[in-house]
Amino acid sequence: MHDFIFHNPTRIIFGRDKEREIGAELKAAGVRKVLFVYGLNSIVRSGLFGRIVASLRESGIEFVEFGGVVSNPLLSHARQGVALARAEQVDAILAVGGGSVLDEAKGIAVGALADEDLWAFYEGREVERALPLFTVLTIAATGSEMNGNSVITNEATKAKWNISSIHVYPKVSILNPALTCSVPPDYTAYSAVDAIAHVIEGYFTKQPGSRLQDRLVESVIRTVIETTDLIMEDPDNYAARAEFAWAATLALNGLTPAGIGPYGFPNHMIEHSLSALYDIAHGAGLAIVMPAWMRWYSGRTHTPSQFDRFSVEIFGVRGAAAGIDALEQWFRKIGAPVRLAEAAIPGEDIERIAENAARLAKRWRLGDAYPAAVIAEILQLAA
Amino acid sequence: MHDFIFHNPTRIIFGRDKEREIGAELKAAGVRKVLFVYGLNSIVRSGLFGRIVASLRESGIEFVEFGGVVSNPLLSHARQGVALARAEQVDAILAVGGGSVLDEAKGIAVGALADEDLWAFYEGREVERALPLFTVLTIAATGSEMNGNSVITNEATKAKWNISSIHVYPKVSILNPALTCSVPPDYTAYSAVDAIAHVIEGYFTKQPGSRLQDRLVESVIRTVIETTDLIMEDPDNYAARAEFAWAATLALNGLTPAGIGPYGFPNHMIEHSLSALYDIAHGAGLAIVMPAWMRWYSGRTHTPSQFDRFSVEIFGVRGAAAGIDALEQWFRKIGAPVRLAEAAIPGEDIERIAENAARLAKRWRLGDAYPAAVIAEILQLAA
Repeated sequence: MHDFIFHNPTRIIFGRDKEREIGAELKAAGVRKVLFVYGLNSIVRSGLFGRIVASLRESGIEFVEFGGVVSNPLLSHARQGVALARAEQVDAILAVGGGSVLDEAKGIAVGALADEDLWAFYEGREVERALPLFTVLTIAATGSEMNGNSVITNEATKAKWNISSIHVYPKVSILNPALTCSVPPDYTAYSAVDAIAHVIEGYFTKQPGSRLQDRLVESVIRTVIETTDLIMEDPDNYAARAEFAWAATLALNGLTPAGIGPYGFPNHMIEHSLSALYDIAHGAGLAIVMPAWMRWYSGRTHTPSQFDRFSVEIFGVRGAAAGIDALEQWFRKIGAPVRLAEAAIPGEDIERIAENAARLAKRWRLGDAYPAAVIAEILQLAA
Repeated sequence: MHDFIFHNPTRIIFGRDKEREIGAELKAAGVRKVLFVYGLNSIVRSGLFGRIVASLRESGIEFVEFGGVVSNPLLSHARQGVALARAEQVDAILAVGGGSVLDEAKGIAVGALADEDLWAFYEGREVERALPLFTVLTIAATGSEMNGNSVITNEATKAKWNISSIHVYPKVSILNPALTCSVPPDYTAYSAVDAIAHVIEGYFTKQPGSRLQDRLVESVIRTVIETTDLIMEDPDNYAARAEFAWAATLALNGLTPAGIGPYGFPNHMIEHSLSALYDIAHGAGLAIVMPAWMRWYSGRTHTPSQFDRFSVEIFGVRGAAAGIDALEQWFRKIGAPVRLAEAAIPGEDIERIAENAARLAKRWRLGDAYPAAVIAEILQLAA
């Protein structure tokens, strides 16, 4: 087991109707005025927007609306949010939405207190402060509700880069699984793929050992698979939505990698280029990348036994190839694309995608292992 | 899945030699002077005391020594600690030791800022503030390093009662698994039993469902069993000590019961009377109580399938009886007592023990399910 620091101060309030408590939580934290960040008007139509506003008013919290966050959130829009947060002198950010809304809200929280443009932090400058962030989650997938990660796309350079900082962990995150019942089957599938991808990166790329962490990962994957199957049968299955949501949170809240030592995020690294260049859903891109990367990596890893273990523990089959096939088959079953063409990405673009991903590989210090030629080789397996 | 709040703000610093960072951590938190709480002089002989003092001096942190905490820590001693903390006007508590030291330090942290005697809080008064607590762990078992629990024995009334509050979660806990290598085989065994007991309570007494939490529990138990076996072969196996330590922390940090709904701590409830009356190690008492309680409860539970599941998942055997036998056999193997007589507790004392435990049952609102007669019936199974 390697040395580690574990620190996750986010307070999770989990359950039906809990969004009604957001005003009281903000008031208890001494917040006076928030920037209310959200995405589409669907939260207005669903009534969620109204319930949040009622809760804010009841607690005397002022708010400034800032909607329009898109999936794969954009730097230009985040910059508008920063300008608004400053002009309105808000003292906290309230994000209501899925991972994209939360990610952009984190960027705004950082930018609002910074002297420099917020992209500097996505390029590597250390985050030293941020406005406090409060969230109400509507799509369970990214774990952003309980971590310090934010991914934003710079549309000018097509760079989909990230920050990771203790200062942008939400103070409070409200998870009402009932809010996720309206997530349609395709996005439910992408969310499942994303949660699985979060735990698989460390599971396969770490050093050997760490039996507890392996088990935690397998617990998360099995739960995601089982609950996704139940949700596909009945989208309103609250129990399944709830277990799925909590599994997705634990998949990227620091629990599973604690003590595993150095590891990489190669699947995310490659996928970020797909969604930056083609604006596909992150989970859809991961469903394409993961089986390809696993086929490529399973022949090269210093711990091939980890693939054997995965195959047995998750799918009850023997050998790396059978386990990867089973995962790909399950992705197909739930409706996620597993080939570039299934997401309308032309095979002839592979070189261009690989060049883009190689930039991020360098940013993440994976440049030696993943030059553009290697990334292209992996992507060929998804052609 | 039931509604829940999860909030665990403790920062864990895990790894070799990390105790050397305690001074810097205190300084970074703005601490000026600490009450340095510990137990036996063994930490002086081992050199740990000297390393901590050097770290404090290096960071300019003043300290007042307060040693002498015993296993099953006593109210009278905690009261002395409160008086000293007040007289010396410390602004934080530093606890260096195992669960007993940490538990008493939490009591002192509460008492130092309270107008009333600290026992009032163990009797049920809500904790509203406490001095900040920092810890360096030397025995991994109780999870006290990452939770808000404290158990203290009132020697006048023989009541071993507890508080549970967000205000006594340690701010920082340092876990250097190498420090636990000197824990002798008997206390290593008791620690293993304690960690298993922490997750088993909720696992068996909750409502059905919550597949992720069941898996997390099973992950912890399997890891504790495997690493304990390795430690018994080689007490200096750092990797095993490390995995054991982290498993013990996760066993009682709020992770496994999140979302499982109402559940009880009947084994702890009964055991607290054993260690309050006979001053035996808590884990030794649990090794006696658990198989007895499991045999009694498995015939009465509304979810007998949970015992079948336990038997298969943990020991690969079929049926409740076989699983409980296997657990008891494993307790015997690692050297934990599994009958009252093995801890020199006379069978004729069962009524007296049951009366004591029935008081705690009422305090924990388990009085209807566990009147003294029922507790005596359970204890007869350990006679």
